Amino acid sequence: MRSTRLEAFSDGVLAIIITIMVLELRAPVAEGRSASFSDLWDGETHLVFSSYLLSFLYIAIYWNNHHHLMQTVDRVTGGILWANMALLFCLSLFPFATSWMGKNVGDPAPAAAYGVVLFAAGATYTLLVRVIIASQGRDSLTARAMGRDAKGLVSVVGYAVAIPAAFVAVWISYAIFVGVAILWVVPDRRIERVLAEEGRLD
Amino acid sequence: MRSTRLEAFSDGVLAIIITIMVLELRAPVAEGRSASFSDLWDGETHLVFSSYLLSFLYIAIYWNNHHHLMQTVDRVTGGILWANMALLFCLSLFPFATSWMGKNVGDPAPAAAYGVVLFAAGATYTLLVRVIIASQGRDSLTARAMGRDAKGLVSVVGYAVAIPAAFVAVWISYAIFVGVAILWVVPDRRIERVLAEEGRLD
Amino acid sequence: MRSTRLEAFSDGVLAIIITIMVLELRAPVAEGRSASFSDLWDGETHLVFSSYLLSFLYIAIYWNNHHHLMQTVDRVTGGILWANMALLFCLSLFPFATSWMGKNVGDPAPAAAYGVVLFAAGATYTLLVRVIIASQGRDSLTARAMGRDAKGLVSVVGYAVAIPAAFVAVWISYAIFVGVAILWVVPDRRIERVLAEEGRLD
Amino acid sequence: MRSTRLEAFSDGVLAIIITIMVLELRAPVAEGRSASFSDLWDGETHLVFSSYLLSFLYIAIYWNNHHHLMQTVDRVTGGILWANMALLFCLSLFPFATSWMGKNVGDPAPAAAYGVVLFAAGATYTLLVRVIIASQGRDSLTARAMGRDAKGLVSVVGYAVAIPAAFVAVWISYAIFVGVAILWVVPDRRIERVLAEEGRLD
Repeated sequence: MRSTRLEAFSDGVLAIIITIMVLELRAPVAEGRSASFSDLWDGETHLVFSSYLLSFLYIAIYWNNHHHLMQTVDRVTGGILWANMALLFCLSLFPFATSWMGKNVGDPAPAAAYGVVLFAAGATYTLLVRVIIASQGRDSLTARAMGRDAKGLVSVVGYAVAIPAAFVAVWISYAIFVGVAILWVVPDRRIERVLAEEGRLD
Repeated sequence: MRSTRLEAFSDGVLAIIITIMVLELRAPVAEGRSASFSDLWDGETHLVFSSYLLSFLYIAIYWNNHHHLMQTVDRVTGGILWANMALLFCLSLFPFATSWMGKNVGDPAPAAAYGVVLFAAGATYTLLVRVIIASQGRDSLTARAMGRDAKGLVSVVGYAVAIPAAFVAVWISYAIFVGVAILWVVPDRRIERVLAEEGRLD
Repeated sequence: MRSTRLEAFSDGVLAIIITIMVLELRAPVAEGRSASFSDLWDGETHLVFSSYLLSFLYIAIYWNNHHHLMQTVDRVTGGILWANMALLFCLSLFPFATSWMGKNVGDPAPAAAYGVVLFAAGATYTLLVRVIIASQGRDSLTARAMGRDAKGLVSVVGYAVAIPAAFVAVWISYAIFVGVAILWVVPDRRIERVLAEEGRLD
Repeated sequence: MRSTRLEAFSDGVLAIIITIMVLELRAPVAEGRSASFSDLWDGETHLVFSSYLLSFLYIAIYWNNHHHLMQTVDRVTGGILWANMALLFCLSLFPFATSWMGKNVGDPAPAAAYGVVLFAAGATYTLLVRVIIASQGRDSLTARAMGRDAKGLVSVVGYAVAIPAAFVAVWISYAIFVGVAILWVVPDRRIERVLAEEGRLD
């Protein structure tokens, strides 16, 4: 199987996930009176909106990283196919986790569940990278391109911390979710170059 | 990253946005009697339909413009990627804004909210154009193709006016929304040629 | 604009329309007792299913015809773009019309509404063909390939008859909807060859 | 028609089916108290989740097999087109069957209905293979690649057994659904090589 095909299918699934999440953002009902902006604020709309924005960011980051990763793949093995499907499955849980967290902002359980989904997605992404490297050799383009993947490691550890932290103080979890997303949006190369000059990275 | 890839992902997201909006157009329920056309008219179906038609038009216009814009792009930088994601995010709010306005026709707040989404989409589109020109040089194909972009400017100003205007008289906002859409559907080149002959455009 | 791009976008929209219709097929709720097959039959599930099957067939037919039509197009003009968008808009009303008819089988108004959507889709498809021929010349590949388009004409006339017929006897409309769909699914060439031998077609 | 086009459309439909199933996984409502993990367990969320996971696996398997099958096809005939549409129709019933079974775990009828959908999908897939071989000759690449298709046969027989078995003991059906899915996920070639060495397969 060519990798373009798997990538096209993954892109389709990611495009749908990123878009159907917005279906949770329902127009508030205003029976028998004028609709007003306070309907958005009094209800849960602004909170659902915030969690949607965060999840949109995460799916966009995954699309971007997944695309770069796939460009280093020559042939798709059964292992790569199923590791990729496992990643898509975890990412497909975003709409559920986003909706539950957005409708219950401040509650520990939905924040922890969001952390579980992030952790599962991060772990299967790491698995996908490992499977690709295993099938293509440690000297392959993928292996060299991924390097030590410090950022991926930091992210997965962050999610793992955010899950129990939700039951201590839910805002710690939120801060980790937002912080890790920002870590990925901020231009990569400059940070890495700086770190490289400090000898922190290969 | 090749621009075709970003374009294919954007196309997927736009195809989904333009289609899931129709999910708001629900079949009216007629318990214990025959369904009739008056169910469409007495309920909000015809109003939701009108706002759907308007939003369909806007997404179609964005798809068309986005496609032309991307054809002038050679390489996708991180800045272009994230400006494009910001645009897709704003456009993904169309189903929500369309639904709220369609179910509350005549109320100022939902009309203003629709204007906010249009303004945000117009602003991020302008941002995307600027980022592309910045990355490719002021003499690039994009820079020359976009010219002064009088129509884009008029649109964004129109949306900015429509937001407060909704609280004065909501029909002003509706007129602006429809007017700007027509401005984009009407064949471009003839207008531009006429304006060019008058020396109004470069 | 290349026609492949317009076709890919149209394919995306058609794939979504054909799939989201199934969302109307909801699992019947069985509170406090075992779910049974009679839940499907007592409720409206089997009727919604039948109208879904019919609409699936129609969208599949449109996808097929649209694909063949687009293969004859060299360059996409503004007119072709907007005629195509008008067609997609009409087709995007299928989920609504399907749902309303499926939940109110036997009632004239929803059947007539389904006929209106079919008629609008058929009319915009004919418009699209005309716009393409107009832009490419009467001797173009499209003009020759479409010929007199007897089947298209019969279909649109059928839909036009089905609309008022629903108020006389709704089963006439249903018979027309099913009959026209079968007309398109049955292999084209044999029928046309037979008709051609009879001198009925060019 | 080129087979790439049919494949792209099928991929789009499969990507949407695999993703919209997750919409059934709704965030549990926790009015007036904190949301907790027991909301997931007390309600039906964990059961809906399990049936979603199973169906995700099945659609992924179909995507994979369909892709391999299509690679052996040179030209798409009308018969292939409609056999493929019949397959997509059956697969589009997965969201409904998944939802009904997931919300009524333990009830025979929804499990039998899931078996019917699996059987219909398996049967139309087999039909598609037959139509392709018929159009391309028994010595074609498809015919040789499919061989006797022992796994496909076992699957369809399994689904046929699972339907009545649901009314004896629903857990038999579940075991068959899971077992057949595992049969397809486990790497193909090793099993076939072993069987081939035993002289069980051509």
